[in-house]
Amino acid sequence: MPQEVGRQYKEIMKKYLESHSEEDLYVGQQFSRRFIEKEIAPEDVISIHKTAMIELHPELRNEVWDSFDFLIEMMIHYGLTLREHQSLIRKQE
Amino acid sequence: MPQEVGRQYKEIMKKYLESHSEEDLYVGQQFSRRFIEKEIAPEDVISIHKTAMIELHPELRNEVWDSFDFLIEMMIHYGLTLREHQSLIRKQE
Repeated sequence: MPQEVGRQYKEIMKKYLESHSEEDLYVGQQFSRRFIEKEIAPEDVISIHKTAMIELHPELRNEVWDSFDFLIEMMIHYGLTLREHQSLIRKQE
Repeated sequence: MPQEVGRQYKEIMKKYLESHSEEDLYVGQQFSRRFIEKEIAPEDVISIHKTAMIELHPELRNEVWDSFDFLIEMMIHYGLTLREHQSLIRKQE
């Protein structure tokens, strides 16, 4: 499953990078709902994004990949807070 | 305040991009706790990250900046879910 999601993510982003259209950007935003349903953590989204960019644009400079690693770390506490939310919701159900 | 946070973020990331040290990465992770306390949304973190990268590495290719715009859209629903959590917490207090 995560590989499938990664493949779809890459395809949607590729389309946006080529078209720059608001419509393709919106497709991405809608796709992210499925990420949340599948409880994919925000730090994993950055990781999926990094993998897609490596595959689409391997020529980019190292600073880009390093900056994604930094961003993954920044998202870890957001992921923890979200999981707290999901367990709170479950308790209320 | 947001400008100050952006400046600090840039400095911390700059250090990491130069050192690649686990320690500097950890400083970033700890710094993100303050972001959550200040209720900075995850999509705003990507935006702050993009601004810092533009200032640190303006020479990077357009694909990088466009990919950050795509990532911002991906984070919007995560931001909504987090705000829902924060309002739930407040109700319980």
